[in-house]
Amino acid sequence: MLLPKQLNNKKMGDKHIIKTQWKGDLTFEADVNGHKVVMDANQEAGGNDSGPSPKKLMLVALSGCTGMDVVSILKKMHVDIEKCNIEVQGDVTEVHPKHYFKMHVIYEFTGKDLPIEKLEKAVKMSEDTYCGVEALYRKAIEVTSEIKIIESK
Amino acid sequence: MLLPKQLNNKKMGDKHIIKTQWKGDLTFEADVNGHKVVMDANQEAGGNDSGPSPKKLMLVALSGCTGMDVVSILKKMHVDIEKCNIEVQGDVTEVHPKHYFKMHVIYEFTGKDLPIEKLEKAVKMSEDTYCGVEALYRKAIEVTSEIKIIESK
Repeated sequence: MLLPKQLNNKKMGDKHIIKTQWKGDLTFEADVNGHKVVMDANQEAGGNDSGPSPKKLMLVALSGCTGMDVVSILKKMHVDIEKCNIEVQGDVTEVHPKHYFKMHVIYEFTGKDLPIEKLEKAVKMSEDTYCGVEALYRKAIEVTSEIKIIESK
Repeated sequence: MLLPKQLNNKKMGDKHIIKTQWKGDLTFEADVNGHKVVMDANQEAGGNDSGPSPKKLMLVALSGCTGMDVVSILKKMHVDIEKCNIEVQGDVTEVHPKHYFKMHVIYEFTGKDLPIEKLEKAVKMSEDTYCGVEALYRKAIEVTSEIKIIESK
């Protein structure tokens, strides 16, 4: 018998699978639906610096996830942005396991007479409702944000 | 006056910073210490599929972080592995914010007469002590693992 959807809500979502191969030393290559992502440690840490560190990909994931939300929401709101840059800062604990204990996201929008209230609303919708990366991080640590606006010439 | 290290332990770790640019549509490009990572949505989701999805990079980060731990620990243990493949599965909630609520890591080691106890110990040390990506995820969700061994010919 099939369970009604509402009785088994969590289980009805997708299952994502990625596969990663060791390439020697501290180099690893992930395959994500055919897209390759090389990870490595820098020379200080005994690696060859042939790709980003795995930990920093956590910050990259957050930037892309919330970025996609925000540009989509602003498009629906008919807010015409020219550029959207997102910086993510992560503070790492000094002791093992060395992990982020705080993240800060800086959204920088470029455009003409951009409506700050709509930019704030779009960011808040991503943070509170749509961004699945941030949702998980927020269960574990503090994530803060700010918005910067650059007037285009 | 400088605070003694032990009074301000968390703050003494590194600060990591990544910067991401919107490239139009749902395409974003991150810069991680000079390494570029392109992210995109697939065509179904309105993107151009020019890179991995941000959310899946969370699984990639976990695979690389624990992978680096495990190959380093096994090297120190003088365990000679020929291959190390790591698969990470993530179950996504059906409702917004769509986020992973469970992850499962499959470590697949290839080698001759590999000592299972040492492989298990290396994985456990990464999970419990060293992997900063897993440490954060485990504060939020369940992460399980298994080990597979392939005898090399």
